[in-house]
Amino acid sequence: MMITLPNTLRGLALGALCALSAFAHASDPLPSWNEGPTKQAIVKFVQETTDKNSAKYVEPSERIATFDNDGTLWVEQPMYVQLLFALDRVKTLAPQHPEWKGQEPFASLLKGDLKGALAGGDKAILEVVMATHADMTTAEFEKTVKDWLATAKHPKTGKLFTEMVYQPMVELLAYMRANGYKTFIVSGGGIEFMRPWTEKVYGIPPEQVVGSSIKTKFETRNGKPALVRLPEINFIDDKTGKPIGINEHIGRRPVAAFGNSTGDQQMLEWTQAGDGASLMMLVHHDDAVREYSYGPDSKIGTFSDALMQEAKQRGWTVISMKNDWNKIFAYE
Amino acid sequence: MMITLPNTLRGLALGALCALSAFAHASDPLPSWNEGPTKQAIVKFVQETTDKNSAKYVEPSERIATFDNDGTLWVEQPMYVQLLFALDRVKTLAPQHPEWKGQEPFASLLKGDLKGALAGGDKAILEVVMATHADMTTAEFEKTVKDWLATAKHPKTGKLFTEMVYQPMVELLAYMRANGYKTFIVSGGGIEFMRPWTEKVYGIPPEQVVGSSIKTKFETRNGKPALVRLPEINFIDDKTGKPIGINEHIGRRPVAAFGNSTGDQQMLEWTQAGDGASLMMLVHHDDAVREYSYGPDSKIGTFSDALMQEAKQRGWTVISMKNDWNKIFAYE
Repeated sequence: MMITLPNTLRGLALGALCALSAFAHASDPLPSWNEGPTKQAIVKFVQETTDKNSAKYVEPSERIATFDNDGTLWVEQPMYVQLLFALDRVKTLAPQHPEWKGQEPFASLLKGDLKGALAGGDKAILEVVMATHADMTTAEFEKTVKDWLATAKHPKTGKLFTEMVYQPMVELLAYMRANGYKTFIVSGGGIEFMRPWTEKVYGIPPEQVVGSSIKTKFETRNGKPALVRLPEINFIDDKTGKPIGINEHIGRRPVAAFGNSTGDQQMLEWTQAGDGASLMMLVHHDDAVREYSYGPDSKIGTFSDALMQEAKQRGWTVISMKNDWNKIFAYE
Repeated sequence: MMITLPNTLRGLALGALCALSAFAHASDPLPSWNEGPTKQAIVKFVQETTDKNSAKYVEPSERIATFDNDGTLWVEQPMYVQLLFALDRVKTLAPQHPEWKGQEPFASLLKGDLKGALAGGDKAILEVVMATHADMTTAEFEKTVKDWLATAKHPKTGKLFTEMVYQPMVELLAYMRANGYKTFIVSGGGIEFMRPWTEKVYGIPPEQVVGSSIKTKFETRNGKPALVRLPEINFIDDKTGKPIGINEHIGRRPVAAFGNSTGDQQMLEWTQAGDGASLMMLVHHDDAVREYSYGPDSKIGTFSDALMQEAKQRGWTVISMKNDWNKIFAYE
C-alpha cells in the first residue's frame, strides 16, 4: 500500500496533466492559425456576435457566412481545378469528336499546346467548358466529376485535389458552424462541379453551394424524368454576380465573407453594407515555398492593387498565408 | 401524517394522470389530421425513413421535403395572393403613372374592371407584375411586401393572408422537421414575395425558399451597394421549372413532395424517380364549406383529370381537405 499509493498518485497526476493538455488543445478551434491580429479578429468577431449581451450580437438565423472556393478554400494554381478537369475531358472525349482536330481551341489542346488553346481567351475557355460540361444528364455529370476527382492529381504536389484544401479554412468553417453560423460557398466555379464533394471535404451540403451554372432542361429519358445540361450559360457567379447569387440562393445578407481575389470584391462590399456586425477577409497568396505567391499580375485569382487599397480603406483583414497559417494542407 | 399521506398520494396520482394526458396529446404531432389512410401514410413514411433498421431508411442529410405554396400551404382563391398584392400596388402607384389611364391592362384595373384587365391573359398579368415588382431595390420591395401583408385582408374571410395558411400543413412541416427533414418551399410564386414571411409563418427560412424571380442588378446607390430589381423575367418556377429550380437551389432530389395542381406534376415525378423511399401527395380542394372547392375547370390551381389519373397510376396520395382535415385554419 505504501508503495502503490504514490504510484497511483503519480499516475493520477500524469493523467490530469494529459487531460489538461488535451483540453488546452481542444479548446483552440483554430490550431493551424498562428496567434496574432488575424486570428484574434476572427475569434473576437465570433465571440461578440454570439454573446447576447454584446452590442454586436447576431440572431442565430442571421448567422450567414459565405466563402469563395478557388484560392480561398482550395488551391487554384497553376490553373483552376475545373479547367484542368475540362482539359482532361477533352482528351477523353476526343475519339468521339474527330472534328476537334481541325477546330480551335481543341486542336491546340489535343497537341498539348495549352497556351495556344487559351490564346482565344474567355471565348475559348467557354467553348471547352460547354463541350465538356453539357449534353448529358445532371446525374451523368455528377458521376464524371466524382470519378475524375477520385484519381486526378495536382500537377505540382501529386496529391488529390480534395487534399489540396486549406486546413486553416477547414478549421474556420467548423469553428463558425460550431457557433451557429450557416456556411455557404459562393464561387465563380460551376455549382454542379462543387456539389458532389463539398459536403465530404468542407462539411458544406449541396443546398449551401452557390456557383456559376449552365441551363438545364427537364425531359423523359428511358421512361424516367431527367435533367439534361444544355450548352448555354445560366448564371455567372463572379464579381457583381456574387451579391446577386447570394440574394437569389440565400435571400439574406451574409455577416461574414471570405474571398481572395477581385472576383470577391462585391461580395465583401455587400456583406459590409449590412446593418449590424460584419467580418470581411481576403486570403493573400504570399507563400511561394509552401503554396504559391501571386497577386495583381496573376490572371488566375487576381489580387489587384486596387483591391488591396480597398481592403485597407474599408478595414477588411488580409490573411497572409505565410504569416497567419502554421499549416496550409492537412497532409503536411 | 395519517391524513396528509393519502392526499399526497391522490395528488401524485392526479399529477400522473395529467402528465399522461399531456403526453397522449403531445404524442400526436398531426392533431388537425383525421385518423385514416392519408395520415397513416405520412406517419408510416416518416417512421420508416428515420428507422435505421428499415429498408426505407434515409440518411439525415438526404431528408429533403419540398412544398408548393399557393393552394398547398396557403389559400390561392379567389385569386393568387401575389396577384392581389400587385393589383393593390397598381392603385397605390397610379398617381405616379398618369399614362396608365389610357393603357391596358392598367386602365381597366383602375376602373375596377378586373375581368377586362385580365382579358389580356398572361401578358397582361406579366405587365402588372413587372410594373409593381421592379424598378426598386430588393430592400424596398421587401418592405413593401411586409407592409402590405401586415394589413391586407382576404376578400372572403377578412383575415390576414398570413392567417390563411393550412393548419394541417403547418403541423406536417413541423413534424417532418422534428424528424430531421429539411423543409423547402418550391413555388411558382415570387421568391422575394415569399421570403419576408415564410420563416415566421411556416418556420421555413429564406434560404430554403425556391420560387420564380426577376433579374437583379448590383449597383451603388447613395454610396451604398444595392440590388435593383429589373423588369425582366429570370426564372419561372412552375411545371418543368420545379425540378430545374430544385436542382439549382437544393442540388439534391427530394424524398417527399407536396403540391396541389398541374404545376406540381413534374416536381412529384422528379421526387418519385429517386432510388430510395419517396412520398408524393396532392392537396385536393374539395371543401366548399370551410374553404373552396375547385379542380379541372379552375384557372387558378388547376387539378386536371389527367393529374388525378396520374396520381392513381403512380400511387400518389390525394389529400381530401374535406375528409382528411378536421381543421383547416388555426383561427377556426
